[in-house]
Amino acid sequence: MRRLKAIISYDGTQFSGYQVQPGERTVQAEVERVLAVMHKGNKVKVTASGRTDARVHATGQTLHFDTPLAIPVEKYMKALNVQLPRDIRVLSIEEVAADFHARYSVTGKRYRYIWSCEPVQSPFRRYYTVETNGVKPDVTAMQEAAKAIIGTHDFSCFCAANTSVQDKVRTVHKLDFEWHGEELHMVIEGSGFLYNMVRIIAGTLWEVGIGRREVQNVELVVASMNRDKAGKTAPPQGLYLEKVFY
Amino acid sequence: MRRLKAIISYDGTQFSGYQVQPGERTVQAEVERVLAVMHKGNKVKVTASGRTDARVHATGQTLHFDTPLAIPVEKYMKALNVQLPRDIRVLSIEEVAADFHARYSVTGKRYRYIWSCEPVQSPFRRYYTVETNGVKPDVTAMQEAAKAIIGTHDFSCFCAANTSVQDKVRTVHKLDFEWHGEELHMVIEGSGFLYNMVRIIAGTLWEVGIGRREVQNVELVVASMNRDKAGKTAPPQGLYLEKVFY
Repeated sequence: MRRLKAIISYDGTQFSGYQVQPGERTVQAEVERVLAVMHKGNKVKVTASGRTDARVHATGQTLHFDTPLAIPVEKYMKALNVQLPRDIRVLSIEEVAADFHARYSVTGKRYRYIWSCEPVQSPFRRYYTVETNGVKPDVTAMQEAAKAIIGTHDFSCFCAANTSVQDKVRTVHKLDFEWHGEELHMVIEGSGFLYNMVRIIAGTLWEVGIGRREVQNVELVVASMNRDKAGKTAPPQGLYLEKVFY
Repeated sequence: MRRLKAIISYDGTQFSGYQVQPGERTVQAEVERVLAVMHKGNKVKVTASGRTDARVHATGQTLHFDTPLAIPVEKYMKALNVQLPRDIRVLSIEEVAADFHARYSVTGKRYRYIWSCEPVQSPFRRYYTVETNGVKPDVTAMQEAAKAIIGTHDFSCFCAANTSVQDKVRTVHKLDFEWHGEELHMVIEGSGFLYNMVRIIAGTLWEVGIGRREVQNVELVVASMNRDKAGKTAPPQGLYLEKVFY
């Protein structure tokens, strides 16, 4: 047996999320189906850094699994890509120590959230960005409000209600905005993220950007530890899991 | 009655091409369906600069139609975009002279063809570029071979057999290659293009780029006026109708 670490990218549009759910098309189910074929029908359990929701994308989701096959990693990657559907691609595979764990060894993650602010959203971007109907937010205000989020906090205010996680203290290391043409990217890096945390942060800072919420209010939201004080959960198709740090 | 000119963009993935075909989802059918709703059920005939095939995209297809509605063009555009499916967007509308004709007034067109040459194609680009499995062609050779195509020629060699067009003389004004990261773009501008012409040129020059055809051979292909001497028709999803000149 050896343990392999794989970095994968997927277009979340046609998936009911990452994690296996009976009767649903999921990323995990597709990867495990292909691995079972490679292992003559034996189930190979795949562990990811964490789940992603329906329609959420990944450009750097990370997995591990154990395999008895002595195929060189380059060939392993090719064999997976030949059999996987085109909306999942394996970008790299490497052999790792037996104690590497895709979920428990995570030291941080980076996500990206994209709004398209053109007067008319490109039809090619409809599944990959969130349309603002030409609204261009005040990014200086959003960046200023983000200061209340950067650092170590109890982020209960940015956590969806339906979670079983007890400890909601996380550290946000970086929260930056970048224009790419008429698309606005929010790039956020942290020690870990609660359920829907990035999307609720995106929704809250968006409200600041369009003047519907004061810059100073975000500090109060964080202090409140109350989900109801934060903004709406931004739609899934703007979100990308970009990198997992170990 | 007034005549309107509309520039539209569409993601060709889920269309059986531009032109109305019974029982098929087409761009023209969708636009005419929405216009009929706006005109209380009266059919409004839409004329495009030309058709595009199934899975071929447009970022600047141009249409005209006649309408009795006295709505300002900005509102007209919004009304269309609200009702059109998200894979078609109207980018601009303007009122034009009654003798403007989207097809007969064309003086030129620009197309773009995109190959993605990364070792592993991004899942987000699978419907929008042609995958080369990491092969990076010799673009200098392709650009050199393109010289035999630029200019005024009988382009029978680059025309699909199933066409009724008699005069196959066209002028190619420009044929350039550009790298955008690891994606290779071929940009071609000309007076007009025969059926499948851009895709056959892309397929032929690609063969030059990967050393399967001599640079000098392309001149012989053009002189032959024989479709069988040219390369394969490149796949539809790499092709974009980018601009129509009037």
